Amino acid sequence: MSSRVTIADVARAAGVHPSTVSRALNPTTRGMVTEVVAARVADVAERLGWRPSALAAGLRTRKSRTIGILVPDLVNPVFPPIVRAAEARLAEAGYAALLANTDTDAAREALLIERMAAHLVDGLMLASAASGSRALELCERFRIPVVLINRRLPGACVPAVVNDDQRGMALAVRHLVDLGHRWIAHVGGPPGVSTAVDRRAGFVSALDDAGIGGGATRIVAASAYTAEAGRQAMEELLAQHQVTAVAVANDMLCLGVYDALAAAGLRVGIDVSVTGFNDMPFVDRISPSLTTVRIQHAEMGRQAAEVLLAEMTSPAPASRDIVLEPEFVVRESSGPPGELPIGQPRRRSTTI
Amino acid sequence: MSSRVTIADVARAAGVHPSTVSRALNPTTRGMVTEVVAARVADVAERLGWRPSALAAGLRTRKSRTIGILVPDLVNPVFPPIVRAAEARLAEAGYAALLANTDTDAAREALLIERMAAHLVDGLMLASAASGSRALELCERFRIPVVLINRRLPGACVPAVVNDDQRGMALAVRHLVDLGHRWIAHVGGPPGVSTAVDRRAGFVSALDDAGIGGGATRIVAASAYTAEAGRQAMEELLAQHQVTAVAVANDMLCLGVYDALAAAGLRVGIDVSVTGFNDMPFVDRISPSLTTVRIQHAEMGRQAAEVLLAEMTSPAPASRDIVLEPEFVVRESSGPPGELPIGQPRRRSTTI
Repeated sequence: MSSRVTIADVARAAGVHPSTVSRALNPTTRGMVTEVVAARVADVAERLGWRPSALAAGLRTRKSRTIGILVPDLVNPVFPPIVRAAEARLAEAGYAALLANTDTDAAREALLIERMAAHLVDGLMLASAASGSRALELCERFRIPVVLINRRLPGACVPAVVNDDQRGMALAVRHLVDLGHRWIAHVGGPPGVSTAVDRRAGFVSALDDAGIGGGATRIVAASAYTAEAGRQAMEELLAQHQVTAVAVANDMLCLGVYDALAAAGLRVGIDVSVTGFNDMPFVDRISPSLTTVRIQHAEMGRQAAEVLLAEMTSPAPASRDIVLEPEFVVRESSGPPGELPIGQPRRRSTTI
Repeated sequence: MSSRVTIADVARAAGVHPSTVSRALNPTTRGMVTEVVAARVADVAERLGWRPSALAAGLRTRKSRTIGILVPDLVNPVFPPIVRAAEARLAEAGYAALLANTDTDAAREALLIERMAAHLVDGLMLASAASGSRALELCERFRIPVVLINRRLPGACVPAVVNDDQRGMALAVRHLVDLGHRWIAHVGGPPGVSTAVDRRAGFVSALDDAGIGGGATRIVAASAYTAEAGRQAMEELLAQHQVTAVAVANDMLCLGVYDALAAAGLRVGIDVSVTGFNDMPFVDRISPSLTTVRIQHAEMGRQAAEVLLAEMTSPAPASRDIVLEPEFVVRESSGPPGELPIGQPRRRSTTI
């Protein structure tokens, strides 16, 4: 590529000192040169193709006015409304947001954080944090203020904006119990993710609270928050448990749960009730529409932006987590139980 | 925030010359110092919190190994599969991808490009290009190689990877005609976007080819590629035209078209057939599932990455556009027409 135009090149062409060019091209110091000079420098800079640089500016001010946002899965529609709200709040404060997709890969997450650090991002929002992640260690090493979104990292000294995941799952279980379900199972999230841990705990204690109990033995964990992993977990569940209802750890998993039930010739909401978690976009439009726990997407993004902005202006000892209250939305995927539970009773072994 | 640790700080603490630190910390020059020195420098750098910097590196090499990707709407699920494929190809070549969301706002797009230029991105992929965009002008000024994804900019001297939008829309119209429809209308995309222009032209010429004609008078353009704009356009269409089928310019619009038809008490696929464009994720799961034109999402992302990588290594006169062939997917939203068309015949004026 063509080599980059420097401040020195612009100074030479404009017939002024390089420091004058710096002042003229920097909005915060433009007032230090005359309007005529500022205009001449701007013209020359544009003609030569001079490129404003976080480099030059960053070396002096250590600020790029840019925030990095890492999401674990670009395909999961739960993230765009959160990110959009964060972007809006950051834009008000003069920050642009750059996103990156970790694909739930810790090595890739580390690479992206290093790349973002090299680009002098002023702060990072991590929606990708999971156990095994080097994210916090890297942010600390590079001195990047950070906020966790939607997930906690136990023991971590950074603020997080999360949902009350236990309570959300309790809302789902209570809804199913109220409908008359007793054979309720849980398709859990992947190990090492706080939402999976908390929603699982919420499931177990809600079954205890309802006087049903035994929740811990009625769980199959999915390997990832994807439709495909949800399908596999539901197939496994049908082979091992008798159910009339399944409380699922998130909405993406539900898509696969629907597929597994359809493949088994079972009708969602009639033969087996299904509840999700997130109320991500489009689950109100799928067939049947999904009964689910609604998280406050926009509020989560806004609050995370506020926390990060506060952290960047006055670093303080780790603030406490912000916990948002979920709601519950009833749609078509849940209904009263049939006469008999569906699926196989658990067996120790089968003999032929 | 704490002030940044420099190469000089590391050199002082490690008791070596700054140039030794530079060599030791740069993977490509690490072999120029002894292993013992390299290890000592790395230890000190980590202890002090030295941050690798595109700044320092970029000032020398003008390379950040980072590509920016601009999308017009984060909420539209058509983009993630395209972006993901591009990311995968870029990662193979050692590039990380940073995404930004323009929200179809030309001013915001310009700001993001300036911010990305300041961060020394090596190249840009623009899925956000529309008329009125300053994107290409900015990329030229900042000497950033660029590729357009999914959209063309007429007269622009930059490569684009697009779909054969005219042919895609012709597939939709032919499907509706084959089902027996004659009262076919078009909900078009927003003005100034190439996909809207090309799909509209495809609609008009396909009606001509089918011997029906009059396509140009049976179009309502949506103000944006959103569900809400689709709903408004469909309401307007029902108030002005008689239809048995609607060929819609993209899948996001179809969500709103479904809403407008439901509000009018009409059944999609029975009273009015609807076809979309993109085959974005989830339209196979909505109710009724959407008959649509399937674009090659992954191939589009991969090809765009290839074009950009080629451009960055050997800048050449603008290559020709790469045009991908769409397919057609028949689902539940289209069926044979009823006896009579739905909606109002166009009237010049109404008197009370």
